[in-house]
Amino acid sequence: MTNGTLILMRHGESEWNASNQFTGWVDVALTDKGIGEAEHAGELLVEHDLLPDVLYTSLLRRAIVTAQIALDRADRLWIPVVRDWRLNERHYGKLQGLNKAEIKEEFGDEQFMLWRRSYDTPPPPIDPDARYSQVGDPRYADLEQVPLTECLKDVVARMIPYFTETIAPEIQAGRTVLVAAHGNSLRALVKHLDGISDEDIAALNIPTGNPLRYDLDENLKPINPGGTYLDPEAAAAGAAAVAAQGQK
Amino acid sequence: MTNGTLILMRHGESEWNASNQFTGWVDVALTDKGIGEAEHAGELLVEHDLLPDVLYTSLLRRAIVTAQIALDRADRLWIPVVRDWRLNERHYGKLQGLNKAEIKEEFGDEQFMLWRRSYDTPPPPIDPDARYSQVGDPRYADLEQVPLTECLKDVVARMIPYFTETIAPEIQAGRTVLVAAHGNSLRALVKHLDGISDEDIAALNIPTGNPLRYDLDENLKPINPGGTYLDPEAAAAGAAAVAAQGQK
Repeated sequence: MTNGTLILMRHGESEWNASNQFTGWVDVALTDKGIGEAEHAGELLVEHDLLPDVLYTSLLRRAIVTAQIALDRADRLWIPVVRDWRLNERHYGKLQGLNKAEIKEEFGDEQFMLWRRSYDTPPPPIDPDARYSQVGDPRYADLEQVPLTECLKDVVARMIPYFTETIAPEIQAGRTVLVAAHGNSLRALVKHLDGISDEDIAALNIPTGNPLRYDLDENLKPINPGGTYLDPEAAAAGAAAVAAQGQK
Repeated sequence: MTNGTLILMRHGESEWNASNQFTGWVDVALTDKGIGEAEHAGELLVEHDLLPDVLYTSLLRRAIVTAQIALDRADRLWIPVVRDWRLNERHYGKLQGLNKAEIKEEFGDEQFMLWRRSYDTPPPPIDPDARYSQVGDPRYADLEQVPLTECLKDVVARMIPYFTETIAPEIQAGRTVLVAAHGNSLRALVKHLDGISDEDIAALNIPTGNPLRYDLDENLKPINPGGTYLDPEAAAAGAAAVAAQGQK
């Protein structure tokens, strides 16, 4: 039995996706390509008659603006919006702002992949006073402590309780819920929904700007395990591109 | 004694502001000039160090997008957002979509001004099936009845209880509250705040895209009666332009 529908949408290409830098909690803008991806995502929602009733976003502009653009295309700018830091990208610690290819060259393939894809090894913490630290950023004023680094396990620990307590009841009430977020906050959620192991999640990549639909039963188990990309061809190409990051 | 701050912002110029048509609840987009006004509004917020903690908008895109653009400029895209139909423009009934100069010519100055500025005489109701009726629009699905016309008194009756119950507590909690709305929903609010009579409110016009700041005491009485426009020169020119509408 189906109830509501969950749509996961990773933001369109950001400036630092394009320049191959670790982004994390740094609040970078979309590129023109990213804006185009967001527009396309909105067209896909219309095409599939998948009109969101409510939107959840992170506190980062690349997710906020992607959702705005997509909802504008779908004539749903007026739906209720909830923003929460728990949907933010993984905090990349000291790597934030650094070039992925340079990190890979300096530290080697193994360390690079460990930082990017290990479930429970965070990168070294960022200096709280560093340029790309978020300590003191007013948007996180309510947090007891702003993270200095995170591994995927840390993202799971903040994202999944938020999903269960706040987002899931909307789905169970029969609504179509759009979550506009990030590569790793969405990987955390997909891991939970599809019951993916700590090891296997390393291989899962989520492409930018391509809505991923989950139909959930009353226990929030996917009726369509793995979800359904609204643009399956672009999804396959996009996931391959994410996996290849760190190549020069 | 001051507590929070209220910032009222009428949307930037819309397509039907530019073409001199009655708009009401019809969901028209901003013009390029309107986008520029919204950008300027955001710059004024920064310049006056007046950074909103929370945003309230109507369900109409011209207010939603004006706020997005202004908050983007002020790096406050991440603040909580609440949207409510009670902040909508006055419903202009059968006049929605019609040209102001043509209405004035057809019905005469007196009837034209009565429809535009009478406190308690609504225009004739729109046919529920007419092109510019909002009956059946999904964004109003929760309303018992979608209005077919409204006078300013009707707007006061929906806007002021919402302000008192929902927006005012935020101000009293010391927050800076941005309300992005419309000529008549903001006139209703200003009438209430400044204690303007049913007669005198006819002469009050609010220009587009110019933030109007109210510092309120603990009883929500303005410390600065009439409010303070962040760009006073543009406000004077803008209000004169609104007053002159209906001229060909």
